[in-house]
Amino acid sequence: MADRNTPFVFDCWYAAGFSHEFGRDLFARTILGKPLVFYRTQDGAPVALSDRCVHRSFPLSHSTLDGDTIVCGYHGLRFDPEGACIEVPAQQGPCPAGIGVRSYALREQGPLVWIWMGDGEPDADLPAGEWIGDPQWPASQQYYHLPASYVALHENLLDLTHLSFLHAGTFGTPDFACAPYDLELDEERGNFKLIRTVKPTRLPPVWAEPLKLTGVDAVRQTTSEFAAPSAHLVHGHFYALSDEAFPPDTRIITAHLPTPETATTTHYFIHHGRNFAVEDDTVTDFMQQQLAAAFVEDIEGLTALEKLASAIPQDDQFEISLASDRAGVAMRRWLLKAATA
Amino acid sequence: MADRNTPFVFDCWYAAGFSHEFGRDLFARTILGKPLVFYRTQDGAPVALSDRCVHRSFPLSHSTLDGDTIVCGYHGLRFDPEGACIEVPAQQGPCPAGIGVRSYALREQGPLVWIWMGDGEPDADLPAGEWIGDPQWPASQQYYHLPASYVALHENLLDLTHLSFLHAGTFGTPDFACAPYDLELDEERGNFKLIRTVKPTRLPPVWAEPLKLTGVDAVRQTTSEFAAPSAHLVHGHFYALSDEAFPPDTRIITAHLPTPETATTTHYFIHHGRNFAVEDDTVTDFMQQQLAAAFVEDIEGLTALEKLASAIPQDDQFEISLASDRAGVAMRRWLLKAATA
Amino acid sequence: MADRNTPFVFDCWYAAGFSHEFGRDLFARTILGKPLVFYRTQDGAPVALSDRCVHRSFPLSHSTLDGDTIVCGYHGLRFDPEGACIEVPAQQGPCPAGIGVRSYALREQGPLVWIWMGDGEPDADLPAGEWIGDPQWPASQQYYHLPASYVALHENLLDLTHLSFLHAGTFGTPDFACAPYDLELDEERGNFKLIRTVKPTRLPPVWAEPLKLTGVDAVRQTTSEFAAPSAHLVHGHFYALSDEAFPPDTRIITAHLPTPETATTTHYFIHHGRNFAVEDDTVTDFMQQQLAAAFVEDIEGLTALEKLASAIPQDDQFEISLASDRAGVAMRRWLLKAATA
Repeated sequence: MADRNTPFVFDCWYAAGFSHEFGRDLFARTILGKPLVFYRTQDGAPVALSDRCVHRSFPLSHSTLDGDTIVCGYHGLRFDPEGACIEVPAQQGPCPAGIGVRSYALREQGPLVWIWMGDGEPDADLPAGEWIGDPQWPASQQYYHLPASYVALHENLLDLTHLSFLHAGTFGTPDFACAPYDLELDEERGNFKLIRTVKPTRLPPVWAEPLKLTGVDAVRQTTSEFAAPSAHLVHGHFYALSDEAFPPDTRIITAHLPTPETATTTHYFIHHGRNFAVEDDTVTDFMQQQLAAAFVEDIEGLTALEKLASAIPQDDQFEISLASDRAGVAMRRWLLKAATA
Repeated sequence: MADRNTPFVFDCWYAAGFSHEFGRDLFARTILGKPLVFYRTQDGAPVALSDRCVHRSFPLSHSTLDGDTIVCGYHGLRFDPEGACIEVPAQQGPCPAGIGVRSYALREQGPLVWIWMGDGEPDADLPAGEWIGDPQWPASQQYYHLPASYVALHENLLDLTHLSFLHAGTFGTPDFACAPYDLELDEERGNFKLIRTVKPTRLPPVWAEPLKLTGVDAVRQTTSEFAAPSAHLVHGHFYALSDEAFPPDTRIITAHLPTPETATTTHYFIHHGRNFAVEDDTVTDFMQQQLAAAFVEDIEGLTALEKLASAIPQDDQFEISLASDRAGVAMRRWLLKAATA
Repeated sequence: MADRNTPFVFDCWYAAGFSHEFGRDLFARTILGKPLVFYRTQDGAPVALSDRCVHRSFPLSHSTLDGDTIVCGYHGLRFDPEGACIEVPAQQGPCPAGIGVRSYALREQGPLVWIWMGDGEPDADLPAGEWIGDPQWPASQQYYHLPASYVALHENLLDLTHLSFLHAGTFGTPDFACAPYDLELDEERGNFKLIRTVKPTRLPPVWAEPLKLTGVDAVRQTTSEFAAPSAHLVHGHFYALSDEAFPPDTRIITAHLPTPETATTTHYFIHHGRNFAVEDDTVTDFMQQQLAAAFVEDIEGLTALEKLASAIPQDDQFEISLASDRAGVAMRRWLLKAATA
């Protein structure tokens, strides 16, 4: 099954960055091992080009944005937003035809910009759903640079048993680990879900306070959904036990959007939204703060895991899977197949 | 002969740490390339386990000590002091049988805890002798993290010629390098000695002051003894030349206890004792301070050696051995044989 | 053609250091991957020896200079300026014959000391010309540690198109990149020149002020000359357009002297001289300051290039050469042939 040594899955939309990062300053980010440079044209369209001048591999991100074009900071080659080289200053005569750098398809969705890394035309929908950017789903965003494989992050999210241990001091409760769960494993589509229901339980402040369920016997239902190599949605549905017959439709979704930088480092974008208290910014801020404390625990745990793994010779690596890993194992097998297809 | 590229000798007791390091807090140390976690049970017994959870290789040292057991900080697997997994919270039904992490035999001796890294049962005595922990042998301890191979440290200790040069400013004297010496090379047992006698000489303060031999013509006899891959004893016998016929039995032993961390880094434990001035702590403190200054010179020298060696391609490495290397060469040949047996 | 993976050219004089660096203190420098130690004898002759004791590879630069000899800081082996071992303190009897470390031929020229790295006797003239050290050519010197291949530095110097872009804020002007140029490519001798003439132009302050040509229509002729793997001369001839018929013989030469340390790091020595205003130190200081600002731009650019190249897998490296690269390509082909001959 897939692990930190598995090749990347290229045919997929990945979060390239937040919309506000794309502007009239060039900025560099490596995605799936490819150095890229980003900017916006004067009309506001986001642009992604390979960050290596076709001539002597100078990083275009160290260059100059001139109108809608980049002028290489070394010998002045000029590239348009499609990556075509349209001027070579030292060349007598017309610009040589047919040289340029690769440009990548981008798609903007609310606060996110997605990038298609595959060789052909994009042939998939954006992976995290329509609610992103919808004003009825107020949201907050975070970014972490994660020094670990994105595969380990997906596995972390698909088995929330760890809430009771890694997050014992933040949003985990002891009853979470041993609560019953259901699986929905769709190997055809590459969609893997684990639905865990804890009841009755007491909710941690991050959920109890916004929903006014502090000190109330409650139902905590959490669905981990691997939706794509680049998107893992954690759906939360929390309500009073007394409302179980007709639960309110208060929904929380955290979109965990891992974009591999290298085999062992990951751009970890998070988009966290809800469909209630739509006008209330204090709810947004409160949940953001509470979640940040918990996500830092994931970062630390996955960093420790990666550090250990990188110190162990390949032939001394091993792992044993448990019943609760069934979703994770199915997901990792699918990833391996998708990566090596 | 053995060098920084030689595999480790596993069938041997190694110093794992000082007794005071073992307590009710988990602590991690890598020994012979294996990450380990240490603690004490509630009854005070020291415990050493592999520092990788059998499930997803999470470092157990980042986990929780609960009574005598470790609860993995990721998904809550519980391990007893023998390394058996006795609880899997997410598992419906009984704990899966027969899974666990490796535990290692430990033996406590005075201020030291030794670990057996071999696969079978320990079949050797502790390597540094019975005097360690004996109240008639008051002692002090030191620890250095040495960024060099333990083989280079053994070779350093077995040819004390270097006292006149590397330690010219601390406990070396010019006459030391050219003094006569005897060898006792026991290739059967893997015990290698070089006995060097300098007389008459003047002793450096580290020995002269405690023995009240300042400014006195003296005999300085030093025996370097490679006793095991993990133990090198330097025996000192120093007395007035006028007492040569019936020398007093004042003995000093420095046990140099290198425990390889990786091929090129070493946990360097030192236990330094004497059989005189038994009640006098000022002697202990004085010698400790004097020795520390000299040992730092060894650390610096061996660090420079390793830094150079690591920058030189393997096919450009060479060395020439001299007559005074006979003991070192025999020791390194034995180490190579023991490592690859 | 040659790049960062090409072996070094050994049969060549390289700048080892500045004269003032050679003195009665030992100092270490790695050249073409070989660790070396330098000093001067009591008579003032510069000495270069391999920086690894023949015995156990202790760095001789961590040792003691005693008269004209080095006494190894580990076991006291003594080496003379030819590298012969002439004393082994621990050895009973005479010093073993025929052991020693390699010594390297040095040649002093004005403020520079050159080293011959080849195996045989030096069979070439010093590569940067007779003017170095000539009192009619007052000069200043600089040293940079460049974290990039020396091949990339040569290519940078041989195509000064980059002045208009990388040095747009210092000594480049926009008209430089598209000015006409001539080539003189001598593949027999390994001498490659690109002569670029910009006219009329306005000179940047670094040249205009010393030559009193500020605000004057001028001719700017710059010849980049790859003279050897270790020497790249940039000849400048700048004068008023009105003097074109009989231009004054005011010459400026910058000798760029790259000495590879490793495949991807370079000791970058610079000797910058002129044949006018011979007595005027303020001219020396002014040009030195102006040039330093520009050379730092090269360092930053080449560092960015190397950083990108080192992150890209070998099978994903590529480059496209333009007409203006003809000299650079010829030079890199010659370097590859010289390195692998």
